[in-house]
Parts: sequence; structure tokens; C-alpha cells
Amino acid sequence: MRESRAIERVRRIAASPAALGLRDDVALLDGLVLTHDSIAEDVHFLASDPPASVGWKLVAVNLSDLAGKGATPAAALLSLALSGDDDWDLHFIDGVEAACESYGLPLVGGDTIALPRGATKVFGLTAIGRAGEKTPLRSGGKVGDSLWLVGTVGDAAAGLQLLRDDANATGALVDVYRRPVPQLAAGQALAPHAHAMMDVSDGLLLDASRLAEASVLKAVIELDSLPLSSAFIAERGAGRDARLFAAAGGDDYALLAAISPEIDPLTLPLPSKTTIARIGSLKTDGSILSLVSGGRPVPLPKRLGFEH
Amino acid sequence: MRESRAIERVRRIAASPAALGLRDDVALLDGLVLTHDSIAEDVHFLASDPPASVGWKLVAVNLSDLAGKGATPAAALLSLALSGDDDWDLHFIDGVEAACESYGLPLVGGDTIALPRGATKVFGLTAIGRAGEKTPLRSGGKVGDSLWLVGTVGDAAAGLQLLRDDANATGALVDVYRRPVPQLAAGQALAPHAHAMMDVSDGLLLDASRLAEASVLKAVIELDSLPLSSAFIAERGAGRDARLFAAAGGDDYALLAAISPEIDPLTLPLPSKTTIARIGSLKTDGSILSLVSGGRPVPLPKRLGFEH
Repeated sequence: MRESRAIERVRRIAASPAALGLRDDVALLDGLVLTHDSIAEDVHFLASDPPASVGWKLVAVNLSDLAGKGATPAAALLSLALSGDDDWDLHFIDGVEAACESYGLPLVGGDTIALPRGATKVFGLTAIGRAGEKTPLRSGGKVGDSLWLVGTVGDAAAGLQLLRDDANATGALVDVYRRPVPQLAAGQALAPHAHAMMDVSDGLLLDASRLAEASVLKAVIELDSLPLSSAFIAERGAGRDARLFAAAGGDDYALLAAISPEIDPLTLPLPSKTTIARIGSLKTDGSILSLVSGGRPVPLPKRLGFEH
Repeated sequence: MRESRAIERVRRIAASPAALGLRDDVALLDGLVLTHDSIAEDVHFLASDPPASVGWKLVAVNLSDLAGKGATPAAALLSLALSGDDDWDLHFIDGVEAACESYGLPLVGGDTIALPRGATKVFGLTAIGRAGEKTPLRSGGKVGDSLWLVGTVGDAAAGLQLLRDDANATGALVDVYRRPVPQLAAGQALAPHAHAMMDVSDGLLLDASRLAEASVLKAVIELDSLPLSSAFIAERGAGRDARLFAAAGGDDYALLAAISPEIDPLTLPLPSKTTIARIGSLKTDGSILSLVSGGRPVPLPKRLGFEH
């Protein structure tokens, strides 16, 4: 609630066309795609997370925004608030470096400040990408488009739950929560052909409703089509409750693309081993978002995702 | 100390030419000048400062970095960490808006997060400017260049001292501390003719030594030439102690430019009422930084400025 009022206020200031109405998590300027995400302790990461994973996550969540627009990483500015714990800070920087190296993101500047002792850790990154031949916005979806998902959903939310139950938990799901993988190559392959595209970070259902709303259309999501990882299924099964948990989980850093039904994304130059599935479609009637399973409507869960 | 080690580590990562070795507070990419400054409560502003002035300062300190390179404001991304105090946050945004409007800086994006209650307030801004025909770096100073200062020094430091003595203090010096004015137009006028240029934000002596070091030269500063405001003189006088205080004060957001002695900056299209003074020169011998007064050397103060 608090956030909405402030965001509304910021939205009124951000009247420039480059701001895209603040609807796309990115801005466009001179052929560049700009994004900035901040992460805070106890909000976006856990105090017990290894510092290198926090640095990795900061970079990855920003790269995921670039992936959602099919952009190629070009430069990053790091906002580094030192915690006062040297080891923690240096390992955090290790994680930033590892992610920048992995995805070819040159760190070109930023700011380092020392916070007062005991202050909540907050970090920010501005990532800048070069736009491809086409930059698909959230608002470009067309009637009849298929909705395709790149990546799986639910893993990070399941990993977070494991960590909440036991701060020493380990395993594939915990790894996904701590070290998300931005789908840059898949985003670049899909962008020229997608009417609309975005990264899925706050929960698939919430993000799909945002894409539908921006496109002035309605989204139908087929619950049974959601791609789930074997680690997720081993932990939670693949039943309806598990699928609803995955659909609203958040921190997926998957991609959601609205693509004409005449195009088969599997014919596009996606990286090998890309998980991609048709999970729904855009239409004109009904509510902004509806869920179906086995051809029958499924009630929406109370919470569609995270509004941080 | 802590900061230096982390900055050193970040510097090794920032090997891209666009990063300019992290020496210029800006990066260059595709004809754009990029900068990011963060400000934290109790470090860069006081908890008692009016929130609108904090928002103004966040924008102004970033614009000052663009001014130091002669760039024209093009876009900003705001990292807004909500404090939980609605009134405070909305007034803060008012201040951001006022500064963006005053200097033609379009807000195009960013991120809003809600911090846990009681967390230290930290805000960040990425400012992007379009480079002019020439972007003077710190490293371009040449032997014999005159050092010119745009603006006055000492006002903000004197204002901060007044506020530390009495949180309810008011007046011109307090205003300068809270609402710095970026010297954008002067920067744009000087940039094509300056061998080196930077904004003065951490203390003139510290920043002048950085310019000299980057240019592999030595700076001589003439203490008696420092431009002081009438408000500063009324508060602290214009004697040697006052001048040393002003020279190491910080938060000035003045400009320091190294310009060939054959060029008279007063003939350039500076805004009317610009305060500009020749305060020294660059040479090859001696220590990185020396101070003179009445033609005689003056010992350097212990502290040359703020290493935040």
C-alpha cells in the first residue's frame, strides 16, 4: 500500500516517453535499455545467505530485466553500501564479479558508501543493455497470442521455504533461490518475434496479469502446462497445490513472451537445454487473468505474487 | 580504510575502457556520460534535514558529476527505499521532482523497495547525460594549465557545522548544505576548452590532488584566491583558518577546471552571475599538492577533504 502511493507519485513525474510509463521495469534511451534494481536484507535476500550469492543475485536480477527485452549487456553501475564487515563485503564483490563475468556485463562505475554500523544492507545496480532490432514491451500483446514461458517456476519459492524452515538447508532449490540465472540468450532469440515480453520475477500470475493489463487484454494460464523442475516435483509434487504455489511463487527470473500462434518458438535459435513451454494465451473477454486445468476453470489463489 | 580496500577490489573488476579506471566518477558509453551516487542518512544528510531537501540533494549531487564533464542531462533512474513514513517519503519525492524539473532531467525509471522499519535511509540515483563535443577527464591536465574554480567553497561545510551546533539553524549557509546547485551550464561552457575538469564535492584540496595525480602533475593552490561567499565571510571571516576550512570543507559542488593559460574563461559563454576564479596552476615539480599564500608556502591541513 505504502509502496503503491509512492510509486504512483513517481509515475506522475516520469512522464518522458523514455520511461515507458514505468511499466516495463526498463527505460529506453538512444538505443540502450536501462534498468535499476535494488535488493535489501530481509526483503530480497536473507541475512544468512552467503554474501557471494547476494552479489550474484543483485547482478542476475538486473540482467533478467535486460533479458526480458532481448537486450545485450553493455555496462553496469554498482551502488555498494559497505556493511562494516570486511569479509562479507569482499565476498559480496566476488559474487558481483562472477555474475558480471558469466554474462559479459562490464562494471563501469557506481558509488561506494560506508553505512553506519548495524544498518540494513541495501545494494543497487544499474544495468544497461544494447537494444536488439526489436524491443518487445509488455503492452504489445495481441489477441490470440500464445503465452510462452522460458525456464521453470516455483524453484526459488520452494528454496526460500526450505531456508525459512532451516537456515542450513542446501540443494538445487536453495541454489536457484540464491543464484538465479538470467535468460539472456533466450530473450535475444525471442525478442524479434515476440509481441510482448517481460521477465517473471514477482510471481507468474502477477506478472502475467501485468502483461495482459498493459496490452489491454486478458490472460488465460493453463496450470497443467507450467514447466516444473524435477527438484521442485521431488520436494512438492506436481499436483494442483504445488502448481498454484509455483505460479505465485516469485523470484523465478523466467521469461514470459506473447507470440503469434503462427510462430513456433522451438524453431528459433534458443540455447540448447532451454526449457520453454506454451502456458496460455491472450484473449479479449473474461477477467484480466484466469486459470484453467483440464479445460476447466480454477479459482485464482488469494495472492498472485509478491509486490515487494 | 574499509572503503579503500573494497574500492580497490571493485577497481580491479572495472577493467573496461568505459570505466575510465573509476577515476572520474563517471563512465562513458555510446556518447553518454553515466554516473551513480548514493546518499545515506547520518553520512550524507542529517536525519533532521527536511525530506524535500534530501531528494533535491540526491539529484543535485549526481547532476554535479555530469556538470564536471560538460554533459547535458538526459535521463535518471531513482533507487527509492521507502522509509515507512509516508509524509517523509512523499516530500522526499517532491524534492526529487523539483530538482529534476529545475535542471531538465527526465526521470525514466528505477526501483522502489520498502525497507524494514527503522532501517537507515539510503537512496541512489543514476544520472545519464549526453556528452558534449569534448568530455574533459581528470587525467587531461597539462603543465602550465591554470586551475579555475566555478562557484564558492566552504559554504556547505559551514552550514553543516551550524546544523551540528543547532539542528534548527537556518540561513544561506544551511541552504547551500541542503540544496546544492549543480553547475551544469558553466560545465558545458568550459568543457570544450578544459584539458581536465571535475566537480569538487569531497573538499577542494582533496579533489585538486586527485586531478593532479590523474594528470601525473602537481597542483599549486593559491589560498588567497579562493572565492568565498559573503555569507561564509560573515560567519567565519576570510582569514587563513577560514580559508583552510573552506578548502577542505566538502559538499561544495563547485567545478575545478585545468585550462591553458592562453584561454580566458571569462570570454566563454558562462551564465551571468557565474562565480569563477583562477585559484592555482599545474606544474611538474614539488609534491602532488601545495598551498601558497602571499607567494609563500602554507603547510597543508591534516585533512584535505572527505573520503566518505
